[in-house]
Amino acid sequence: MEFQDVVRRRRMVRNFEDRPVPDEALDLILENALHAPSAGFSQGWAFLVLQGDEKRHFHDVTYPGHDDLGVYRAPVLIVCLSHKDAYLDRYTEPDKGWTDRDESRWPAPYWDIDTGFAALLMLLTAVDNGLAGVFFGIAPDKIRVFHEEFGVPDPYHPIGAIALGYAATDTPSSSLKRGRRPQAEVVHRGRWQSR
Amino acid sequence: MEFQDVVRRRRMVRNFEDRPVPDEALDLILENALHAPSAGFSQGWAFLVLQGDEKRHFHDVTYPGHDDLGVYRAPVLIVCLSHKDAYLDRYTEPDKGWTDRDESRWPAPYWDIDTGFAALLMLLTAVDNGLAGVFFGIAPDKIRVFHEEFGVPDPYHPIGAIALGYAATDTPSSSLKRGRRPQAEVVHRGRWQSR
Repeated sequence: MEFQDVVRRRRMVRNFEDRPVPDEALDLILENALHAPSAGFSQGWAFLVLQGDEKRHFHDVTYPGHDDLGVYRAPVLIVCLSHKDAYLDRYTEPDKGWTDRDESRWPAPYWDIDTGFAALLMLLTAVDNGLAGVFFGIAPDKIRVFHEEFGVPDPYHPIGAIALGYAATDTPSSSLKRGRRPQAEVVHRGRWQSR
Repeated sequence: MEFQDVVRRRRMVRNFEDRPVPDEALDLILENALHAPSAGFSQGWAFLVLQGDEKRHFHDVTYPGHDDLGVYRAPVLIVCLSHKDAYLDRYTEPDKGWTDRDESRWPAPYWDIDTGFAALLMLLTAVDNGLAGVFFGIAPDKIRVFHEEFGVPDPYHPIGAIALGYAATDTPSSSLKRGRRPQAEVVHRGRWQSR
């Protein structure tokens, strides 16, 4: 598909058909995630792919009692994990040369942002392959049980999960009523203009 | 261009030709940024577009004495700003229903991640239009002077800037020697496996 069509067709889909995701499509989605940019090429990310019983277990422990939700019907979940230590370590290497792992050197949490880059590439690749997805967060009070149940080491923080599958009819998010903010509101030129 | 070609051709480019970016391309790049997903459709982002003297001023105040760098030759800079308050406010609205603006409700800094989504869409759109770009951070100790010199309100935090233009020959980043991490290292299935 043309790049521009993929960008404009992408939306968060919240209901899915009962059809599996082809292995080749899932493989390409994961491969493209690894082509996301990352600060210092740190690539401080990991992806936990859940299907079948493991996928159901994820929903049961992170959002119990909601198995009527359309998102539960997605056949594949990809939990996106950011690994801050990989960045702090990377920047103490000789070609970067920071002398410590002080977080105040960082202007933004690039471990989370870069893992987000990978997540967006997966969502776009899904569209390019006739699939759909939705990115959603794990409630902070469920993150501990998620780590425990899936054996995920503490330093890997789930910034969210992607549910993937073939789109079924869904109810548009109430958020869309807000409307897209136009360039006139969010783009400033030369110097910030107060509005 | 085909989506898959855009993903695989994108790389951070650090030197640029002395050629302007066409207005139509810049407009499409900014328009695609606004098609990034955001939590609750909060769209808590802003973009400051700098060219000419204002672009030079940005470099002078954020990284003085380095005007020999290839990245300084890029004709356009887009500073990407995240606006946390827009998210905290959005989730107190009736359809979200959080009763306070407590940040501990958030599993990850979606204000920064969503602004990152917009930045990646701009980098990819540049490639789709024959252009190139690089995303780079502003040193934390230069963020105050950036706010002052460009009149940017404090709640808008620059997660980084994109330099845009036509690619010229550059020296590949030393980071690339690290190599891309393969799926076998970063993708886990069903449950985390210790490696």
